[in-house]
Amino acid sequence: MTDKRAGLVVFEPQGRRAEADPEANVLVLAQRVGLDIESACGGQGLCGRCRIKVEAELPPPGVEEIEALGAAVDFRLACQVVAPAGATVWIPPESTRQKQVILTAGREIEFELDPAVKSYQIQVAPPRLKSIIADRERLLNALVPVVESASRVATPLSVLRRLRRVMPQGEGRVSAVLRYDWELLDLRGPDGPGPLGLAVDLGTTTVVAYLLDLTGGRTLAVTADTNPQMVHGEDVISRISFADRERDGQKILAQEAAECIDRLARAACREAGVEPRDVYELLVVGNTAMHHLLLGLDAAPLARTPYAPAASDSLEVKARDLTINLADEAVVHLLPVKAGFVGADTVAVALALEADEIDEPTLIVDLGTNGELILAAGGELTCCSTAAGPAFEGGHISGGMRAGPGAMERVTINPADLEPTLFVIEDKRPLGICGSGLVSLVAGLLRAGALLPRGGFNPKTKSDRLRQGPQGWEYVLAFEGQSGLGRDLVLTAKDVSELQLAKAAVAAGASILMEAMGLDRVSRVLLAGAFGNYLDPADACAIGLFPRVGPEMVQGVGNAAGTGAVMALLSVRQRERARRLAGRMHYIELAAHPDFSGRFTDGLIFPDP
Amino acid sequence: MTDKRAGLVVFEPQGRRAEADPEANVLVLAQRVGLDIESACGGQGLCGRCRIKVEAELPPPGVEEIEALGAAVDFRLACQVVAPAGATVWIPPESTRQKQVILTAGREIEFELDPAVKSYQIQVAPPRLKSIIADRERLLNALVPVVESASRVATPLSVLRRLRRVMPQGEGRVSAVLRYDWELLDLRGPDGPGPLGLAVDLGTTTVVAYLLDLTGGRTLAVTADTNPQMVHGEDVISRISFADRERDGQKILAQEAAECIDRLARAACREAGVEPRDVYELLVVGNTAMHHLLLGLDAAPLARTPYAPAASDSLEVKARDLTINLADEAVVHLLPVKAGFVGADTVAVALALEADEIDEPTLIVDLGTNGELILAAGGELTCCSTAAGPAFEGGHISGGMRAGPGAMERVTINPADLEPTLFVIEDKRPLGICGSGLVSLVAGLLRAGALLPRGGFNPKTKSDRLRQGPQGWEYVLAFEGQSGLGRDLVLTAKDVSELQLAKAAVAAGASILMEAMGLDRVSRVLLAGAFGNYLDPADACAIGLFPRVGPEMVQGVGNAAGTGAVMALLSVRQRERARRLAGRMHYIELAAHPDFSGRFTDGLIFPDP
Repeated sequence: MTDKRAGLVVFEPQGRRAEADPEANVLVLAQRVGLDIESACGGQGLCGRCRIKVEAELPPPGVEEIEALGAAVDFRLACQVVAPAGATVWIPPESTRQKQVILTAGREIEFELDPAVKSYQIQVAPPRLKSIIADRERLLNALVPVVESASRVATPLSVLRRLRRVMPQGEGRVSAVLRYDWELLDLRGPDGPGPLGLAVDLGTTTVVAYLLDLTGGRTLAVTADTNPQMVHGEDVISRISFADRERDGQKILAQEAAECIDRLARAACREAGVEPRDVYELLVVGNTAMHHLLLGLDAAPLARTPYAPAASDSLEVKARDLTINLADEAVVHLLPVKAGFVGADTVAVALALEADEIDEPTLIVDLGTNGELILAAGGELTCCSTAAGPAFEGGHISGGMRAGPGAMERVTINPADLEPTLFVIEDKRPLGICGSGLVSLVAGLLRAGALLPRGGFNPKTKSDRLRQGPQGWEYVLAFEGQSGLGRDLVLTAKDVSELQLAKAAVAAGASILMEAMGLDRVSRVLLAGAFGNYLDPADACAIGLFPRVGPEMVQGVGNAAGTGAVMALLSVRQRERARRLAGRMHYIELAAHPDFSGRFTDGLIFPDP
Repeated sequence: MTDKRAGLVVFEPQGRRAEADPEANVLVLAQRVGLDIESACGGQGLCGRCRIKVEAELPPPGVEEIEALGAAVDFRLACQVVAPAGATVWIPPESTRQKQVILTAGREIEFELDPAVKSYQIQVAPPRLKSIIADRERLLNALVPVVESASRVATPLSVLRRLRRVMPQGEGRVSAVLRYDWELLDLRGPDGPGPLGLAVDLGTTTVVAYLLDLTGGRTLAVTADTNPQMVHGEDVISRISFADRERDGQKILAQEAAECIDRLARAACREAGVEPRDVYELLVVGNTAMHHLLLGLDAAPLARTPYAPAASDSLEVKARDLTINLADEAVVHLLPVKAGFVGADTVAVALALEADEIDEPTLIVDLGTNGELILAAGGELTCCSTAAGPAFEGGHISGGMRAGPGAMERVTINPADLEPTLFVIEDKRPLGICGSGLVSLVAGLLRAGALLPRGGFNPKTKSDRLRQGPQGWEYVLAFEGQSGLGRDLVLTAKDVSELQLAKAAVAAGASILMEAMGLDRVSRVLLAGAFGNYLDPADACAIGLFPRVGPEMVQGVGNAAGTGAVMALLSVRQRERARRLAGRMHYIELAAHPDFSGRFTDGLIFPDP
């Protein structure tokens, strides 16, 4: 009998033990006890990623191992050494297979870095006259140790044409960039930069791009710009109408979206000191109209019953076919859309919030011109879209503006005299009221009793700020002298109605989703998007934006759509999960729901303060 | 116990019996006894392909069945009827799954029609407001009954963009054109023409295109033209050198090859009364240089040791990426090449001759500027390429010309006075000597004793036709008055040497292949290509073209490369077989073989007559 303890190898810091095996290198031995050590060359001693320290007597490293280790002289390669019985193996954090941790809704989401695009460093054999192998097949043979079924890897024409220049004509090393271990996107010298990816949240108003290092999962730069399609209309309906009505309208909008992404990619690469030609994958989320307009699909049917998208499942197209200039063979992956007005951005929000794992009834709300709602409970999901109207973005409001410098984003109102204290973005003189400011203002006036539950101003209120204007009663938020407008900044009775319409649409949608899932209340409301960050939960509850919800239950979760896009870019499993999420969400078309108009009318009323 | 006989359904003319089953329609019942009835709609009663006659009492056909049957009023659809016990079902030949029969080397090759591109007629459901399905997914759902894993069908951007216009917005029928049941190449109205394919033999000198109906397997037209690259050199080496040397040389040659294929496709479509946009697949075979030059790959390494191709396995690229104008999403499939000088045309020859099933030792020879040899025996295959030189195509011969009007293609020589009887193509006055004519002439002079085994003219021969010319001895084939040249048409001693070099290369290659397989003789020689059809086996043997072979063992097999291309176009199994064939062929590089020069020297000698 051998001494059991002496026959073991200990892995630290995990403290796992494996039986020593002279036939198994440390990379293999670690796998046996469930420890994944990083490796990009399949254990060929080439990539230098599987660095470990071993406390034991070992034969000295060979020339190749020394070369692969470079400056890391204290280390050894797990794939090149066998740990004798009694050895302790230290696995440094950078050598363990990487977990990604992303913070959303106040909690960490952990997932494995598992990008579609990976770069493999491989050693190719020289061609031999006795047994001639074509360059492509010599490359694929070298891929066999790292890629299962390497012989079936598809080789696009552009890569085939470059192959000869890059393949070493003797023995040598190259980097092969593969997508899904299935398509050879590029072949490069051994020491180039790792593959990059770009996650894009293609919003109707704002486009945000996140540049990521696909090997390490790090965000290298974030850039944002106004959607250049804005000149053809602020909302999706006017864009769809432009595409349908104008000669080449569809092409113009597709081109503008592509150019915007192109610009953001270049700007992000400049910021990070990298090259757009090293970006191999683009992951795009956006509402269904943006999705169709980017792809050049006819979006007109999205604006008329039955509002059917042209395609809903995830799609992949070459970036060059959309005239986006990244790597030659770069691919655009579009997450699935759910319906004409529940897009890939909503699917990305659901992914970022792990809606499929939510147990307690939770309402997820993404408010803009359109409001998308998801109700999650016990792993079940329903969703809908409400035409909330532009009030939440400051649209159709007499003094309304987008959230930007000079926008009043929050206000407190003294119930005694209705004197306001304004919170203005960048502390400027107020130029207008943005969405969160509108909600805050109406909430304050309701609390002060200056607005009545049906939305009318209370004529009994005593204040210089409440007066008859050209269109009936109005409240003066800032007199000419205080405003940056050169005139009074006011809230009119019509402005209040606009907000009532918007909030009634959201409340009706939420109530129908709750009914569909047999719930009479929710435990939490998660507010996605920038609006959710600015909005004060107490104000949202004061205007009755969500049925039977208290402020302590409302939480802003930031740009969850962007987070979801990044997750799907970094992980094939996460993008598959997004597909499953889209499939599992039960969509309710409010336009076809018999109770919608009744609920909507009920929702117009503000709660008693 | 039920009466066993009465419980049966009989299928004729096959005479198979199946137990009657009220749950199984005739299509399903036939499958149970191994009978494949044709169906393109998966048994949905739409395509009308599964016509049968039933001798039994049946309920009358419904409206849809009557519509699908059209004029075939005596028939029923197998997918719509259940045959009662005791019924006899007649399956007409057009309803059985189609076998293709191709005649090569005097025997029939039978294979199942199994093209990569198929058209499915499907019935799509209307969109519904209650449960909205995107157009693409509505289409894929309709494909489920006919295509396994329809949900994973890839949809190229051009098809996505057209989807909306073609998809019926109510219930309706469409034709979906799929490749490998995996990529949606097109979506069309229900009554369009079936998908077409084009098989192309891209020869150095001549390009031949075969237009095929992929649904029925019929050849609709065959067109041929001279390879326009000819202006840059007659042989592959001069083309490769042009591509390498000239500015844009590679692009020019690729463009010329593409334009030639384009022209041939248009001409074939015109002849058949069909449209190039209905051609969805192009199957190309050609030697390795033609393969590389068409794809725009660097061919220069083919001309220098180790003669490695850029890629050898079968490849698929979009026709539009090669600027070939067929259907938008048409695909070019290139059969594998074996080595720098054993191309896809040789692989296609091996396929057409079913070389993998050849048992008796058989030498397959494709002679041109290059001679490719395959030796097949007992399922094993070796191959090589010999630089036979241009003599077999009439090149480098003083009076040489290609086989065409005015070329002397065969000759008999009176041994008494060396008077020739000429066989000239199109019975014109002789303008020159083509390859087969050269072999025939040398064979005749050898038999008459006017040429000696070492290749010299026999000075003892008495004839006015044998004389001293400016370059030594020569034989006058036609005096000025008889020739169409305005001067004497002669065979010089140098011409004889050229043929000796060519035949020695072939004989040495054959002898090395035989040695490699441990054979001292072969049972058969199959001559592929046009040259093989013109060449008289007795003449070939008289000059000793093949070691130890009698004329009765030599057979011309026509354009076997074209036949192989057609087989691979019509059947995925045949193209997989071509891949396996290429993998199994053991290639011998004669340039690296130690015995080659000795064998070559031996081969220079003509056999004793």
